[in-house]
Parts: sequence; structure tokens; C-alpha cells
Amino acid sequence: MKVFNFNAGPATLPDVVMERAQKEFCDYMGSGCGIMEHSHRHKLFEGVLARANENIRTIMEVPENYDIVYIQGGASMQFAMIPMNLYVPGKAMEFADTGTWSAKAIKEAKLFGETKIIASSKEDKYTYIPDPAKMTPSEDASFFHITSNNTIYGTQYQTFPESKCPMLADMSSDIMSRKLDVSKFGMIYAGAQKNLGPSGMAVVIIRKDLVERTPANVPTMLRYATYTENDSLYNTPPTFGIYMLSLVTDWVREIGGIEEVEKRNNAKAALLYSAIDGSEGFYRNPVAADSRSKMNVIWRLPSEELEAEFVKAATAAGMIGLKGHRSAGGIRASIYNAMPMEGIEKLVDFMADFRKTH
Amino acid sequence: MKVFNFNAGPATLPDVVMERAQKEFCDYMGSGCGIMEHSHRHKLFEGVLARANENIRTIMEVPENYDIVYIQGGASMQFAMIPMNLYVPGKAMEFADTGTWSAKAIKEAKLFGETKIIASSKEDKYTYIPDPAKMTPSEDASFFHITSNNTIYGTQYQTFPESKCPMLADMSSDIMSRKLDVSKFGMIYAGAQKNLGPSGMAVVIIRKDLVERTPANVPTMLRYATYTENDSLYNTPPTFGIYMLSLVTDWVREIGGIEEVEKRNNAKAALLYSAIDGSEGFYRNPVAADSRSKMNVIWRLPSEELEAEFVKAATAAGMIGLKGHRSAGGIRASIYNAMPMEGIEKLVDFMADFRKTH
Repeated sequence: MKVFNFNAGPATLPDVVMERAQKEFCDYMGSGCGIMEHSHRHKLFEGVLARANENIRTIMEVPENYDIVYIQGGASMQFAMIPMNLYVPGKAMEFADTGTWSAKAIKEAKLFGETKIIASSKEDKYTYIPDPAKMTPSEDASFFHITSNNTIYGTQYQTFPESKCPMLADMSSDIMSRKLDVSKFGMIYAGAQKNLGPSGMAVVIIRKDLVERTPANVPTMLRYATYTENDSLYNTPPTFGIYMLSLVTDWVREIGGIEEVEKRNNAKAALLYSAIDGSEGFYRNPVAADSRSKMNVIWRLPSEELEAEFVKAATAAGMIGLKGHRSAGGIRASIYNAMPMEGIEKLVDFMADFRKTH
Repeated sequence: MKVFNFNAGPATLPDVVMERAQKEFCDYMGSGCGIMEHSHRHKLFEGVLARANENIRTIMEVPENYDIVYIQGGASMQFAMIPMNLYVPGKAMEFADTGTWSAKAIKEAKLFGETKIIASSKEDKYTYIPDPAKMTPSEDASFFHITSNNTIYGTQYQTFPESKCPMLADMSSDIMSRKLDVSKFGMIYAGAQKNLGPSGMAVVIIRKDLVERTPANVPTMLRYATYTENDSLYNTPPTFGIYMLSLVTDWVREIGGIEEVEKRNNAKAALLYSAIDGSEGFYRNPVAADSRSKMNVIWRLPSEELEAEFVKAATAAGMIGLKGHRSAGGIRASIYNAMPMEGIEKLVDFMADFRKTH
């Protein structure tokens, strides 16, 4: 049975991408072997890498003074690389704390220097994003770090703060989901396994001048310059992951680019939230209205028993991955770019039926 | 055309593995989506991970007091993680320098503390492995590090040194290619993209007591304990890479385990070296007889022009990836576990024909 996969990441990928990758798995472009088996210095892989870079640059309108690189270790490795590379001694690293992932980034930064939390919703259980217009990072901070979408708490920045120091954004769960101005950021990074491809790497979009900050004693593989100066080919990159990313971003361009993706994401989220809001309190989304995520929609049912039953019945009906994060409980539907409207329609129908019978 | 792929890594994978992965790419075990799309916390992926672990432990006879983990960043990231985790202040890190990869490991270690090279073949252009029986690492060194096979220079340890301090081995290009006693090592690590699967991670086999050495200020993602304590699931691992590794190691067990693999590798290397040695000097292998690698066989022709022609003609005949490393020149045939004897036979026939006509 074809299922709809609402996992938070690794997550569903577009059917056409999966089918194409399957078709050419053992024989890429008539070369007699899979892209996975080719050297990362072979012209076929160079083509894949160039295509991935070009797609990201085009779709996100990445300015020329930014480099795009692929770094292993996911966003969690970036939590360490950021302070190792971008901390300027004597200048605090500033953060907005909007959830588990922000807190992890702060924890790693503390190993390297002074940190300062300038906005937080921790005391309200991370149920909203503090007003971005009121976030005032210091001009002389090392950087200001935000988490644009909070996968666990179902919140998302609707607008971005202004920052006179370099603003860094962990966009793991909403990169390439909506139009934004890259030039407002010093660096954007994202684990690939939600909107971009399989797990096993982070995409890092970094302003060229920031790469020069790194102190001399940082190891080679943990320096941004190692990646920017070698087009991600200093050592063997995760070639198959980059290949999948190139196919996923091909698909984004084929369906109409970022405008079409954003339009679809808006429609999908609107339908799902209206099903929650129209349920007369049976389904409850705890997030402030102006902070609701269009990528990770969370809700509760009247009891944990009903939540467990909901997940079980949905799985049986062909909708998997709906259980909330183990630290938050409840239900979570991750509806990244690759989730089609049909998946939301099926889920919404199921929700209505479930409510009637429970 | 089916080709034989002699790339040094990423490298050829067993046909049966590629075909199986292709078959279940979009629908793993009837789950309705690919293993790549499943959560790393899903029971299906847990099964994959358990299988990978069990296969490595069984095939390599890894003792119970060693952990097996998967870390992103390849062997190059290990060059940094090793001194970050295992350097004991005041106790030198000792190395045998047998090539480019040894030298890179030494370079990273120098960022963290005192290093000492106790054996080297650098002055002889790395054409041999210094006698392992004469390597005498200090009892009170932090560790002693070797590179068991040198992909670029075509050399390989035939026996291992004795060490009273923990011996660490980069086995990127010959892990699981022959029987060895894991208990002689403090840690064995390998980039996966040669004998184990696709690029994008290193397999690390580490003695449990060594994990406790790490200083408090090492970031989470760079601590061995983060991986050993969470069975490689602290953050999202490269799930598809681990899946491919589980299939490759399934294959190793199916064909008869490490004894059969070693037997095949011995036969393959013997045939290829005999073709070189029997060519009346047309093909020349520069490596000392007691240091020849059974994984990466290198040779020269009478001129660089002939070498270029050899590579070109071989490619046309369906044998790819034979060009030597850009830093060494010449010809290199990487004949890892997955290269079948048929590939060697075809190559040897081609070499004889090429010699006759040039």
C-alpha cells in the first residue's frame, strides 16, 4: 500500500524523485555503474554537484557573495562549527531560544565563549516565537543565532528580525519552503533530511567574508574554508546524498520554483489548521496563532489514550509518522515540501471520521 | 555496457547488493516508502542498524569490550577527533608515517599536542612499510597510530606492530579484507566508501575504556561517547549509508565470511601482480615486495604518454577508474572486496594485449 509519510525527518521525498533514483540506481547515465560507485572526482559527479549548487542558488536567489557547501554531521555538527569558526573573543554570541534545537546550539557555543540569550519563549513552554521586531541583537555581537522553525514545538518565524551583526539561521526544517531574502543572513544552514534529501549532511550557505574569521587552531574538517575553497571536495563528500539533493531541487524548479512551493505549503497548512480549529476543541493546537509552523503541525487530543489510538488508526489507514516527538507528546504532522495536498486531504478526512467515532 | 570499476573510493559495490537496494528503493519491506524516508527511530531502521552492527561484529570477531559506531565526516574527520578525544596532555601521540593519509593525521594531531614519528618511509617516497617488528611505540604514549593500507602508494602492512600503548589504525582502504585480531588495537576506523558501502561516514571500532578519556570541553558531536552511549543515534545518522553497509556486510557473510574474502583477495592480487612482474619491465610496480597492497595495485608504464593511452583504451574497453592518484601519477587498480575475479581477468588480458600492441 502506498502510504503518506508524515515523519519529521528523515522524511518523505517526492515520488518522481524516488522513482528516477531507483531507475538509474545501478546504471547512471549509461555509465555502467551507479552514481554511488563513481569517484567524487569523476565528471559525472562533478555534474551532479554543479547542478545541486546551481539549483539552490537559483531557487533561493543566493547572492554571489555567498558560498554553498555540504558538510557532514547534520545541523548538530553546525552547533559546534559555528562557535569554533565565528566566535570573536570578547564579543558575545547572541541567541533567540525558541526550543530544543536553539538550546542545543547555545549549549555548544558555551564551550567556546560568552553567550547571551536576547529573546526566549522557554518559560511558556516554547509555544510561540517572541516578536522578531522586538529582537535587538547587539551591533558588536559575534553573531545572532535563530532557529527559523521549531520541529518539536510546531512554531515558525513568520518574519525575521533585523540584525546589525551577522544573523545565522538554523533552517533545518523550513529551508526552501518559502521566499526569503538570503542577504539578511550571515549564514543559513539546514540538515538535508527534511526538505532537501536524505540524512547525512547539512547544507551551509555562508557569506564569504565570515569564512575568514576562523582561528588558526581549528582542525581542517571543522573549518568552513576547507569546504568553500574546495567546492565541498576537500575529502570525499556524501556523493549519493548530494545526488538526491540535486534531484529534489530539480523537482522544485520543475514544479515552478519557490513561489509555487510556498503557495502549496500555505494551502496545505491552511487546510490542516482549519481542520484542527474547526473540531470544537477535540483537536487542540497549543501554538500562538502568529507563530504556527507550516512545516510541523502539532496538536493534542482530549487524552493520551485517544492520541495513541489516533496514531494507531492512522497508521492502519496508511498515514505513518504522526506520533509527536518523544519529548513533547501528542500528534505531529510534518508536511514538508514533498508532502502532496492529497496527503493532507486524506489526513483531514481521517481526522473528521476519528472525531465522529470517538 | 557493464563496466568493471577500479575506482579507489567511492568504489564498486557487489552487483547483488546494488540490485537488491534498487529493488526495494521505493518500498522497503512492504512499508510503502523507502528506507531513506523512514525515521531513524522507526523499528525498520533499528533493524537495519542492529544488522549492520551484528554483521561487523561477527565478520571481524570484534570483542565485547569494543563499541561499533558510525560517524559522519569520513576518515578525515577522525584525524581531528582522535587527538581531541584521545590525547593525554604530557604524553606524546606517536605515528608511523607511511603516506599522504598518515601525514594528514599527524598534521591534525599537531594542533592539539606533542607528536612523534617513530617510523617513516617518507624519504623513500613511501614505497614500502617500515618493518612493523621494529616499530617500538612508547609504553606511555597517548597512542600509536598507523595507516594499515596506503591507497595512493599501494602499500600495506602484512603484519602489525606490537604496542603497549593503544594502537589506532586507519583501515579505510583495507578494513574487512583479511582476518586480523581486533584486540591488538585500541581503535580501528575506516571511511566506508571502499570496502563497506557508500561515502558519507566512517565506521569506528573503539575499545570501551578509551571513550572515557575525552576532556570536558570537546563538543558533543566530536566526542566518541556521544556515539557509543546512543548507539550512533544521538542525532540523525546517515541512514541510507548504514542500510547499504548492512547489505554489503550481509553479502560478506553470505559468500563465506572473512576467510573467503581474504582468499579471494589473495587470488586477485596474485594474478594482477604476476601480470605486472611477468611483463618484462613494460609494467613496473615500485613497491617493495613485502609491502605490496592487495587492495590498491599501482604500476607505471614506460612513459606518461603510454599511461594516458592505457587509461583511455581501458575505459573504452569497459574498465574505468584506473588512473593513478593525481599526486602519484601512473596506473592504479583498486580491487576491493566487491571487485570480482572476472574484473581482474579482464584487466590482465587487456594488459597483455596492450603490451603486445605498444
